Amino acid sequence: MTFPLNTWYVAATPDEIPPDQPLGRRICDQPIALYRDAEGRIAAVEDFCPHRGAPLSLGFVRDGQLVCGYHGLTMGGDGRTVSMPGQRVRGFPCIRAYAVEERHGFIWIWPGERDQADPATIPTPIWSGRDDWAYGGGLYHMPCDYRLLIDNLMDLTHETYVHASSIGQKEIDEAPVATRVEQGVVITERRMAGIHAPPFWQMAMRAHGLDPAAEVDRWQICRFQAPSNVHIDVGVALAGRGGFDALQADKVYSVVVDWITPETATSCWYFWGMARHFQPQDSALTDAIRTGQGKIFMEDMEMLRRQQQNLLAWPDRALLRLNIDTGGVQSRRIIDALIAAERTPAT
Amino acid sequence: MTFPLNTWYVAATPDEIPPDQPLGRRICDQPIALYRDAEGRIAAVEDFCPHRGAPLSLGFVRDGQLVCGYHGLTMGGDGRTVSMPGQRVRGFPCIRAYAVEERHGFIWIWPGERDQADPATIPTPIWSGRDDWAYGGGLYHMPCDYRLLIDNLMDLTHETYVHASSIGQKEIDEAPVATRVEQGVVITERRMAGIHAPPFWQMAMRAHGLDPAAEVDRWQICRFQAPSNVHIDVGVALAGRGGFDALQADKVYSVVVDWITPETATSCWYFWGMARHFQPQDSALTDAIRTGQGKIFMEDMEMLRRQQQNLLAWPDRALLRLNIDTGGVQSRRIIDALIAAERTPAT
Amino acid sequence: MTFPLNTWYVAATPDEIPPDQPLGRRICDQPIALYRDAEGRIAAVEDFCPHRGAPLSLGFVRDGQLVCGYHGLTMGGDGRTVSMPGQRVRGFPCIRAYAVEERHGFIWIWPGERDQADPATIPTPIWSGRDDWAYGGGLYHMPCDYRLLIDNLMDLTHETYVHASSIGQKEIDEAPVATRVEQGVVITERRMAGIHAPPFWQMAMRAHGLDPAAEVDRWQICRFQAPSNVHIDVGVALAGRGGFDALQADKVYSVVVDWITPETATSCWYFWGMARHFQPQDSALTDAIRTGQGKIFMEDMEMLRRQQQNLLAWPDRALLRLNIDTGGVQSRRIIDALIAAERTPAT
Repeated sequence: MTFPLNTWYVAATPDEIPPDQPLGRRICDQPIALYRDAEGRIAAVEDFCPHRGAPLSLGFVRDGQLVCGYHGLTMGGDGRTVSMPGQRVRGFPCIRAYAVEERHGFIWIWPGERDQADPATIPTPIWSGRDDWAYGGGLYHMPCDYRLLIDNLMDLTHETYVHASSIGQKEIDEAPVATRVEQGVVITERRMAGIHAPPFWQMAMRAHGLDPAAEVDRWQICRFQAPSNVHIDVGVALAGRGGFDALQADKVYSVVVDWITPETATSCWYFWGMARHFQPQDSALTDAIRTGQGKIFMEDMEMLRRQQQNLLAWPDRALLRLNIDTGGVQSRRIIDALIAAERTPAT
Repeated sequence: MTFPLNTWYVAATPDEIPPDQPLGRRICDQPIALYRDAEGRIAAVEDFCPHRGAPLSLGFVRDGQLVCGYHGLTMGGDGRTVSMPGQRVRGFPCIRAYAVEERHGFIWIWPGERDQADPATIPTPIWSGRDDWAYGGGLYHMPCDYRLLIDNLMDLTHETYVHASSIGQKEIDEAPVATRVEQGVVITERRMAGIHAPPFWQMAMRAHGLDPAAEVDRWQICRFQAPSNVHIDVGVALAGRGGFDALQADKVYSVVVDWITPETATSCWYFWGMARHFQPQDSALTDAIRTGQGKIFMEDMEMLRRQQQNLLAWPDRALLRLNIDTGGVQSRRIIDALIAAERTPAT
Repeated sequence: MTFPLNTWYVAATPDEIPPDQPLGRRICDQPIALYRDAEGRIAAVEDFCPHRGAPLSLGFVRDGQLVCGYHGLTMGGDGRTVSMPGQRVRGFPCIRAYAVEERHGFIWIWPGERDQADPATIPTPIWSGRDDWAYGGGLYHMPCDYRLLIDNLMDLTHETYVHASSIGQKEIDEAPVATRVEQGVVITERRMAGIHAPPFWQMAMRAHGLDPAAEVDRWQICRFQAPSNVHIDVGVALAGRGGFDALQADKVYSVVVDWITPETATSCWYFWGMARHFQPQDSALTDAIRTGQGKIFMEDMEMLRRQQQNLLAWPDRALLRLNIDTGGVQSRRIIDALIAAERTPAT
């Protein structure tokens, strides 16, 4: 097992689960059917009908209950069969039910032991419930181990190469990077002073009424939090105004949002987005950023797919762990510790 | 092995095998080349040229003999090489030849031991050679164990869910089902009295000059016969006229024809069709029924494909065997006994 | 291992490797990145960045050095890292570098031990550097063991069947074939006297000013040279003028060029072409021949793919070795001896 199970992952976005239609999704190697009950609350059960093994996600939702599309078995959100035409269902075997919560604009799932799931431990994003932030994002299916994507996001030197036309610039390579761990959060920082903004940030400056040709100070502060959340403070301020601490009017400041959910050992669901702390009311800007960010993250996909293939082909070859990789290395240490703890039975 | 071999399966329909062109088809995990000899009779041999292993089905038929398309070896219907340009072929190794017969509008094959094949045991369908019946059908490649398709056909409660817009109706679920075994044939019956006909049967009533809005009695009598034939008496009669036993003028009566042939352990060939005992001369009706039935059976495909995937992912999970499943359960018992008998050497 | 490694294979054609872009290609089961250095010379290294395992072929070439497209590591043609932004690279692990040469219009690679690679052993084709010859060709990816393609080319009786509409004719089957081995070269000859030219050769005769309807003497002299080069003298001369030895004006004479490079155990790169010893200045003829030859060799692809599948399905079934197969059999003997020699450590 290459991922912890007793933790919250983003399973879906709310719009993926309409009232009448279940969503089938493999999470942590477990096929799961998600749907909304009569009150609109999310429920999640194994995607396996106890009658004949059909996927429940091929069925439908009637009066808030999940109905198998093969022979009409009605499944409860607790994994017990509610009813089936012409049958007594009391003795039917249960299927797994999962702890799920809808919060902060995402559907969260706990793929491990249900009684350990505490909704209070779902992370609260900085922009949640705040009018002075705006959020937009999307979902990609990535053909790689979720940890390769964490590595990718915790070492932004790749922007210079993979994203040369949008957010990359040679100064990223040249700026020193510093990594520390604070209360279980891995933080990797890079600051670039007195540079010219790359195209993506020029677009943002223009939208915020700043001169896109002006010299800026740029920052990237990657934060990894278990199991696989990487949020990155990114932005530029007019040069010499304090960088990240500059006045709102003098900077464009966003958080790159990455919730990563393992699908299998070699694939993952990538819920990406950007929370923006400037011009939050500008929905055209939200769309433009989503489009731009979607293109940028698409550029990573082929690289990660091929890196994954190479690592499968050369399983015994050790990779380097340079200073720029420290963020990823530290993140994996935390993940490994969680996995090890799950393997050790509690006393 | 999940299928018996010493039995007749439908291999193809006659139109699939023109005089000059062989047909390659995998049956019971055996790649086979079928073709017509000089008299138009069907022959079948392993799809493997003894010269260099090319598939014989990529070749052609010349003067009723199968010629390898790679180097011109001519194969006989008995698996012995007839000739090869510039070669003496007497010492060439033989390949397997199969017992095959063309009967009742189908090509039959016996994938097991040839000397046990008795054409007299090929089943004679009720409509064979009769002018007062009409037949139309098609062929689908199904991505599932052939036994899942038998289960599907021996439990028609799925019509209510999978085929809701054509032949399904809630009364199917509500009607009790009775299963019995008579002389090796598993029979599952369901009768619904005083209902309204679903769309498919309204179309049939209209074609037969009956009022499609009239109340009807409906019947479904599934018959499984080894190894994998399911024929289903289906129809509706004006309510109270005797149901299945009503006069010809008062009912529309058909047989759903399902010949199922294993391709691999997880795929099969599905020769489906409908034999109709009303308006047999109406070829436009035959076409309309074929189109409608093709759409209906296509609805099963995705469900069966995904059920198969689920069963492969959870191989140790036992499925339920409800009263509605009795037809499938009994059918599998017969299949299992045939497979076991083939494993036991005769004394 | 089904191929020798300490030998030269064609890796690519020069046009596949422009100055600024690497080419990724799997050769003998080894993923390799090929590129041109600052002097335009070909270099080749493992397609694996020692930093994080990304394929170097996804990167680019800057100032004649291969730059990883993920984080900017610069790799040298010797497999040692040259530099990386912000890093000291002296301790980085090396990757494999390959001996490569550009000669005679092809890029050659030695996938085995580099210090054994002697460019003097690269074969010199008969047409190399000669104005009275013209060459045109292409590259196909073939879904079969490279040895099946050698078999194909060393037994041209298949032309009668696979290429019936272009170069096949029944006289090929009827003409005796003679095979001999001379200094490590397997030679299979077939001559046909007083026949009519098939369509491809009629086209060539017309281009050379000969009457395409005239009787001709035709020859096919297949030459296999280790590891997997098959060159075939082919042509027709006006009947009775000496065949292969006829005057230039009375014959059309070409060499079918086949350089075959294993990709995996069941796939290969097929560099095919034709060197022509008539009308060399006629570039429209070169194009017409390339188009025609491409169509002909495409006809082999499905046959070889399906033959490969059959051989994988029946691994224990011995194939026949007829007189027509002697060329292929002798070629495999030479290959087998090379493979065995590589397995035996030198004393």
